[in-house]
Amino acid sequence: MAEDQTAGITVKKDDDFGEWYNQLVLKAELADFTAIKGFMAIRPNGYSIWEKIQAYLDARFKETGHRNSYFPALIPEKFLTKEAQHIEGFAPEAFWVTQEGENDLEERLALRPTSETIMYDSYSKWIKSWRDLPLLLNVWCSVFRYETKTTKLFLRTREFLWQEGHTVHATREEADVEVRQQLDTYKDLCETLLAIPVIQGLKTDRERFAGALTTTSIEAIMPDGKALQMGTSHNLGQNFSKAFGIKFIDKDEKEKFAWQTSWGVSTRLIGALIMVHGDDKGLVLPPKLAETKAVVVPILFEDSKKKVLAASRKIAEKLSKDIAVHFDDRENYSAGWKFNEWELVGIPLRIELGPKDIEKKQAVVVRRDTGTKSFVKLSELNKFASAELEKMQKDMLSSARKFLKDNTHEVKSYNEFKKLMGSSRGFIIAQWCGSEDCEIKIQEETTATLRCIPLNKGKGSGKCVRCSKKSQHRAYFAKSY
Amino acid sequence: MAEDQTAGITVKKDDDFGEWYNQLVLKAELADFTAIKGFMAIRPNGYSIWEKIQAYLDARFKETGHRNSYFPALIPEKFLTKEAQHIEGFAPEAFWVTQEGENDLEERLALRPTSETIMYDSYSKWIKSWRDLPLLLNVWCSVFRYETKTTKLFLRTREFLWQEGHTVHATREEADVEVRQQLDTYKDLCETLLAIPVIQGLKTDRERFAGALTTTSIEAIMPDGKALQMGTSHNLGQNFSKAFGIKFIDKDEKEKFAWQTSWGVSTRLIGALIMVHGDDKGLVLPPKLAETKAVVVPILFEDSKKKVLAASRKIAEKLSKDIAVHFDDRENYSAGWKFNEWELVGIPLRIELGPKDIEKKQAVVVRRDTGTKSFVKLSELNKFASAELEKMQKDMLSSARKFLKDNTHEVKSYNEFKKLMGSSRGFIIAQWCGSEDCEIKIQEETTATLRCIPLNKGKGSGKCVRCSKKSQHRAYFAKSY
Repeated sequence: MAEDQTAGITVKKDDDFGEWYNQLVLKAELADFTAIKGFMAIRPNGYSIWEKIQAYLDARFKETGHRNSYFPALIPEKFLTKEAQHIEGFAPEAFWVTQEGENDLEERLALRPTSETIMYDSYSKWIKSWRDLPLLLNVWCSVFRYETKTTKLFLRTREFLWQEGHTVHATREEADVEVRQQLDTYKDLCETLLAIPVIQGLKTDRERFAGALTTTSIEAIMPDGKALQMGTSHNLGQNFSKAFGIKFIDKDEKEKFAWQTSWGVSTRLIGALIMVHGDDKGLVLPPKLAETKAVVVPILFEDSKKKVLAASRKIAEKLSKDIAVHFDDRENYSAGWKFNEWELVGIPLRIELGPKDIEKKQAVVVRRDTGTKSFVKLSELNKFASAELEKMQKDMLSSARKFLKDNTHEVKSYNEFKKLMGSSRGFIIAQWCGSEDCEIKIQEETTATLRCIPLNKGKGSGKCVRCSKKSQHRAYFAKSY
Repeated sequence: MAEDQTAGITVKKDDDFGEWYNQLVLKAELADFTAIKGFMAIRPNGYSIWEKIQAYLDARFKETGHRNSYFPALIPEKFLTKEAQHIEGFAPEAFWVTQEGENDLEERLALRPTSETIMYDSYSKWIKSWRDLPLLLNVWCSVFRYETKTTKLFLRTREFLWQEGHTVHATREEADVEVRQQLDTYKDLCETLLAIPVIQGLKTDRERFAGALTTTSIEAIMPDGKALQMGTSHNLGQNFSKAFGIKFIDKDEKEKFAWQTSWGVSTRLIGALIMVHGDDKGLVLPPKLAETKAVVVPILFEDSKKKVLAASRKIAEKLSKDIAVHFDDRENYSAGWKFNEWELVGIPLRIELGPKDIEKKQAVVVRRDTGTKSFVKLSELNKFASAELEKMQKDMLSSARKFLKDNTHEVKSYNEFKKLMGSSRGFIIAQWCGSEDCEIKIQEETTATLRCIPLNKGKGSGKCVRCSKKSQHRAYFAKSY
């Protein structure tokens, strides 16, 4: 890591959230802009977070019978147009391949914005009988969307990494169970691994995935008070099976159209992680997401250097039996410089050892999230570090939960709604009549979009917050990314 | 799996190797053609082999300090043209994106055929000092090459999956060490996991990677006698660092151009695996590559069904403590039908249990590669199965080694060379003067290409097999894929 790159973040998170975010991503070497407008390079510090997310999800997917596969990155234009809503949603933001080698193509090929159409053409060949169901496939790949808004690394780029699950079932009920199972997996991922609490809910027709029957999502609140959609799980109904001819002979020997689901999360989650947990010093990694859990930094003085380096190496070696640890034995950097560097990239624990610590048979353990210093007997260091990592993981989730709670307000009147959206931040819970007209007007009048109808306690009671007609739903509103 | 898909392969491997291969890939559900010419879908049975290869390599790469990253799938045309040989090699087979959304692009973007250029533009920003070296990155992604020859699933498709490592070093010597380290990793992968022996060697200038200083490769022999390039590792010298301005201030405070390597293996390895180990019944998976190591098939008769199912379930559960096992308890398929199905997809061990076996407290264990049947006491089944899997892995490599040996001939005369290429198959080892003219003429006159100069015993002695001038190299020749 070059010295100039690790100069700290020069703005405060509370002063200029956007600039703070950009600096953090670049200086912690999580990602970088590239020569192609809107496309990012994901650097190892960022990619290793994605690998932890992949490992967690992949294990969960496989436990529940899903298998991985791969499908072409290119989609014929005629496939995209087969499902009417789907093409409307994705055509305006497609990248088009029109030439191969020296030849012009007869039909344009879109870089996949999502793989429904190319996968389901194959599904229609593979599925013949109820014996072939359920078909439970997942794909890890990148997708392409021609975004016209300013690039924000991890949050809005023209190519990003994701997983997309695509399942086929005999009945709507089975598809509904699948949709919910994945939404629960995503919630667990966010809460247990990323330490970010989320709301699970149903999207309105206006925000539904292009081609789906119903879309469910998980939504989180960011420190600037805006909501971020963290993942989606769709019941596609029979829309695509009818468009692509995915039919099966059921046990009753009748031919039926299949029911389908699709669901995905992307590298956008890394953006959420940075925003929620980062601070003025840099990234803060929840311990379970960190590739390196702790760094050992020897405090070196000329006269005791040899002894301290040897003792530090020893504790690093001992720690490595229980946790992934890095021993920073570079002699051409000061301890202070190292502290800054490891804080910038978010390593959960820093363990310092100086000549005085050796005399006292102790080490200093510093937590990245709170900055808490503990003086720990060397004989208890492994046990303490493991326990502290577990505690830190829990505390980070608690603290994010508190923020969510403090920034969620249930309102009774539209005045209160408008006042809160003007001055405050976060989620507003309000009663809604269910009409798209009110949904649009609320956005125009308050800038808040209807994020979702929560799966838990989403039933309406009383009157719509805006039009006073009978409420259908208790809904979450917020400004959004 | 639908019944009609598991009808066996209808041709013999020895009778029509090409048709046998196609049927195996399709019927074992490893991959399928798609609606886009030249593009394949990799189905779970095929993808799970790729996951095993990934896991093996990823661990090795990380042990040796490499980290994963991701770079754009699109490359500006001006980047591809920066290194003169590189553009010559890749431009004719590029897919070009020319439109985004409703707009025509000012500059065409190529779908990456390989990522040197897009990565090295970023490298030139990131590398400033000797402290930033070595930079050891790997990428798992797909690449695109407009192939005009007939599609062969896994072997020749217009998109395939691979890993590409790209490292930067201060000196040529360090780059040479890296190149060799990866070539050794690839050899180990092929031999210990895929059970395919390979020759490590240096490519001639004619076969060198477009833009490289030297290209090394691993080469294997297929059952039809053709050689298949299984992986490559390049020393790029300073060709790209000069084209992209990758410079660093060295310890001596002088600015220097960096030395680079790149190396990769692809899903083509799955094609090699199928060809080398498959037989008339289908795929044969080396145990280490198999997701499921054994399948338990109960032999069901009406009067003993309940007892046999219960006993079979019990041994499957016990086996699952030591190995990944599948219990095939379907009652609507005959045992014979199940045997065929599991043989087709290549599960290493089949464990049969019938009413008479229960009486004798035994099970029948059948090895997929040899068909050997063993009658094993139930109390010893776990131990036996684990040992048999290990033995099978070794035997498959030994058998492939024997085939390689039997099909490698060192010749003294050009007559002998031509005669062997006409009648026989496999590698021919011969002395070569080192001139490209002789290399081309040998191909024209015998159809054999110079595969590589082996790293081991590659020094020439005596006279060139064709022109009788002084030999520079002892080289491997073969027909190739």
